[in-house]
Amino acid sequence: MRPFTFFERFYKAFHDYPSLSKILVVSTISGGGLIVYSEANGSYSNNGVETETRKKKVVLLGTGWAGASFLKTLNNSSYEVQVISPRNYFAFTPLLPSVTCGTVEARSVVEPIRNIGRKNVEMSFLEAECVRIDPRSKKVYCRSKQGVNSSGKREFDVDYDYLVIATGAQSNTFNIPGVEENCHFLKEVEDAQRIRSTVIDSFEKASLPGLNQEERKRMLHFVVVGGGPTGVEFASELHDFVNEDLVKLYPKAKNLVQITLLEAADHILTMFDKRITEFAEEKFSRDGIDVKLGSMVVKVNDKEISAKTKGGEFSTIPYGMIVWSTGIGTRPVIKDFMKQIGQGNRRALATDEWLRVEGCDNIYALGDCATINQRKVMEDIAAIFKKADKENSGTLTMKEFHEVMSDICDRYPQVDLYLKSKGMHGITDLLKQAQADNGSNKSVELDIEELKSALCQVDSQVKLLPATGQVAAQQGTYLAKCFDRMEVCEKNPEGPIRIRGEGRHRFRPFRYRHLGQFAPLGGEQTAAQLPGDWVSIGHSSQWLWYSVYASKQVSWRTRVLVVSDWMRRFIFGRDSSRI
Amino acid sequence: MRPFTFFERFYKAFHDYPSLSKILVVSTISGGGLIVYSEANGSYSNNGVETETRKKKVVLLGTGWAGASFLKTLNNSSYEVQVISPRNYFAFTPLLPSVTCGTVEARSVVEPIRNIGRKNVEMSFLEAECVRIDPRSKKVYCRSKQGVNSSGKREFDVDYDYLVIATGAQSNTFNIPGVEENCHFLKEVEDAQRIRSTVIDSFEKASLPGLNQEERKRMLHFVVVGGGPTGVEFASELHDFVNEDLVKLYPKAKNLVQITLLEAADHILTMFDKRITEFAEEKFSRDGIDVKLGSMVVKVNDKEISAKTKGGEFSTIPYGMIVWSTGIGTRPVIKDFMKQIGQGNRRALATDEWLRVEGCDNIYALGDCATINQRKVMEDIAAIFKKADKENSGTLTMKEFHEVMSDICDRYPQVDLYLKSKGMHGITDLLKQAQADNGSNKSVELDIEELKSALCQVDSQVKLLPATGQVAAQQGTYLAKCFDRMEVCEKNPEGPIRIRGEGRHRFRPFRYRHLGQFAPLGGEQTAAQLPGDWVSIGHSSQWLWYSVYASKQVSWRTRVLVVSDWMRRFIFGRDSSRI
Repeated sequence: MRPFTFFERFYKAFHDYPSLSKILVVSTISGGGLIVYSEANGSYSNNGVETETRKKKVVLLGTGWAGASFLKTLNNSSYEVQVISPRNYFAFTPLLPSVTCGTVEARSVVEPIRNIGRKNVEMSFLEAECVRIDPRSKKVYCRSKQGVNSSGKREFDVDYDYLVIATGAQSNTFNIPGVEENCHFLKEVEDAQRIRSTVIDSFEKASLPGLNQEERKRMLHFVVVGGGPTGVEFASELHDFVNEDLVKLYPKAKNLVQITLLEAADHILTMFDKRITEFAEEKFSRDGIDVKLGSMVVKVNDKEISAKTKGGEFSTIPYGMIVWSTGIGTRPVIKDFMKQIGQGNRRALATDEWLRVEGCDNIYALGDCATINQRKVMEDIAAIFKKADKENSGTLTMKEFHEVMSDICDRYPQVDLYLKSKGMHGITDLLKQAQADNGSNKSVELDIEELKSALCQVDSQVKLLPATGQVAAQQGTYLAKCFDRMEVCEKNPEGPIRIRGEGRHRFRPFRYRHLGQFAPLGGEQTAAQLPGDWVSIGHSSQWLWYSVYASKQVSWRTRVLVVSDWMRRFIFGRDSSRI
Repeated sequence: MRPFTFFERFYKAFHDYPSLSKILVVSTISGGGLIVYSEANGSYSNNGVETETRKKKVVLLGTGWAGASFLKTLNNSSYEVQVISPRNYFAFTPLLPSVTCGTVEARSVVEPIRNIGRKNVEMSFLEAECVRIDPRSKKVYCRSKQGVNSSGKREFDVDYDYLVIATGAQSNTFNIPGVEENCHFLKEVEDAQRIRSTVIDSFEKASLPGLNQEERKRMLHFVVVGGGPTGVEFASELHDFVNEDLVKLYPKAKNLVQITLLEAADHILTMFDKRITEFAEEKFSRDGIDVKLGSMVVKVNDKEISAKTKGGEFSTIPYGMIVWSTGIGTRPVIKDFMKQIGQGNRRALATDEWLRVEGCDNIYALGDCATINQRKVMEDIAAIFKKADKENSGTLTMKEFHEVMSDICDRYPQVDLYLKSKGMHGITDLLKQAQADNGSNKSVELDIEELKSALCQVDSQVKLLPATGQVAAQQGTYLAKCFDRMEVCEKNPEGPIRIRGEGRHRFRPFRYRHLGQFAPLGGEQTAAQLPGDWVSIGHSSQWLWYSVYASKQVSWRTRVLVVSDWMRRFIFGRDSSRI
């Protein structure tokens, strides 16, 4: 967000070259603003008060969705934020598949992290990777990519008061031999750029003389492993790139190109509604993308990929390029840290519902490197009963129960989810049903067994949040808002009653609001699944996709860049120079 | 040039989404067309006639200015063109300094070479480097960058009927130790991208903890070697990038950044008018760019650069990054070829005035890899006299002389240049003056000695053409036009009389028309030197620069991209993400 820069420049332009500049600026803005709606972000007013005391030092590891939205929201001048990441920019990852085919430029989806923080929060950035976290001495140890000082030392350490871990995850190879060495991943902007030049290289290689048809076919065989949203979007982007742009330049290659999608499960896009899955599979089959379901990759070498079907059949296919997009794994630094704090056997850092890392003080983790360890209602049922039974009567009156009801719903989000899934409006409905089931009809009081039987099903709704940018961004915003009101809420806690303890929690726990998900399928068609199981597939969803992705850009700069990239592609097609 | 694609897409857009698309397309075009004027390129009519005979195979090495303008102009379907180059695109090199600082995107200055040729000329492209030319067997030997076929063979050969060598030159290190290893060059798009990320890296490195002020200063010391247009433009672009954009993000670095320009000669921009040189030196001194004139680099290591002044003083300066831009050297493949054909002691391939490589059949060379060996008038003076003296009288009448006059001017461009430099209107003036000088006043006939004394000065005007894209592009266009009319002119030669031989030359010799030159100096100021010694410096020239560079783009696509990049920069500044 650089509103001041923008207006400064506008003013300067207006001042120096009145007429021409005005036209330039206006035409660009009007061009960029056509299908964009602005997300008005609150004012930049400084509502933190400078105090004499030392500022608390927040060290933020990572500049992805979680880190960037934390920075964008944090608005309290009593902190000084030290951001540490190997990348000095935030990348709008949902557009990475578009970058691989040149639909959008790499630079259009990135924003320097230094531009993202708010003006009244002191922020500095170090381009380095965190290699070790020491919670006892409250230090993180970092390493820069290049030789730094005269003694060639590349490591340094940084103290923190609060540590926010948002380093994300890495691609998961499942230790399958040859994947690391021979496959492309699609996590970083550089990955997308490499994929792009490899695609062009493949076409150039296949155009050289002295090759037989088999060899050319191998070079133009593109394999995508993983039928999730990223793999599917990449496959369809590649299909469009090849058929709309590349075949014009490489007419001889047209009949040699083959795109294959390998998926270990029985369907692609399993996280979506069945209608979307079916539509996508049919569209891919019409487009000539070969979807091999139930195919587990077992080995990759430099020219061939071997897979096994569920029936146990092996097959080996020659390939030109593989893009590996099967899921996420843990970064080494997080693995080490987890061992230190006794979470060694987990896949990701466990946090409580307030995103605090379990077993640590003042350390928070969010995004793909963390999972929330949601407390189960049934584990706490005795304590809940005791808390509600203020008179210690051994039974709960409805009045007593109503007093703690909203706190329970706050503390255990699964209760709300369960009620929604059953079409109920409140816990009262649940209790009534439980009493009806138990035969203890119309009783106005309920004992602990009745409470147990009423709530015994709700924990089935505890699910891991998906590893998406949407979750990470909401967590970043949530945590920043907690940091903003840390002192206020210390005095006036706003969270639910502490079930095992006195008083109230400082904050409400994090709650994820699913806003829907897109799966672009190529040919200007997108599948969209919105809350309430609303499914839309086709050209109209593509325009929705354009609007949402334009509006979700982190700055006006990237918004204009992305929209103008789309327009460029629309008019001139994608570029195929190997740059 | 992809007019059909453009209109196809326009039509499709119009058809599928009538209203919205129209607005999109129109707004983009109007945005892009604002400060652009179109260079109308001749029609796409097919004026070649398909014949039953085998097409002549033209092998073109290189896709730079010379190669691209050759391809763009060639319009005769009796040729099949095989382009071979390590780069499958044409790059608009004058904008490379802008790419280094992100003022213009890398992809905006490149156009796939396959898009450049005309529709009726059969053209194919091989992404490979030519490693050997064999004029006896009429073959070129090429090597691809990657392993290609199953036997891992990366080399292949290609036959030709005509060979057009347009491989350009490489940076000249003058064999100064350490330059190759430690300096950045600025010849290719990849070079510009590397420079860009090195600049950002330097700022990130200097922001890390654990460094003293000296080390930070070293990292932020940018050295440019060579005060030619490229070096000067890069230094001023970098200065603007640092002062307009980077200091906002790296406020602590502001007082540590230093840009130094080393130039061996007594002034920078020596190829320009003195007024421009003075203005540039003054502007740089105001901007704080340290210009060290008369500084010859003698050695570079990984942290320091050593230079010697003309007085013999040595100095060693620590640096963070060096950009080396001192001139051009010969590529190895051209060196080898020159040895083969007995031109081993030259700097570039010698061609005659028709761009034919001397001593070879059907081989042409143009652009930076070649120089025209212009025949001297005085070498041919006896033959000229003999040719003109049709009556063999031993003297020339004015009538006889007038008959060959235009042929001589055609054949020896230095004659015209000499006349222009003396303010004369025709050779008659020259003869009259020579006769006046010799005292043989008002004679109507002249003997060979009088002719010699009249023309003895003209060869002083024979100069090597500068190694610029302008020269290369004009040569490419010239050669393509010769190829187009090869058969026609075989029957009806249109060149001047052959001085040593019978009949006429098939074509007029190549003649360079200097259209002027720009030197951008930063801060939206440019120096322009146009024909007729017209010099303009300042903001107005900057707008001229924008217009000319936009109009000179090889396709409408790159034109729109470059203009919209300028607008982006104008509004949002340059991006500083390390991508």
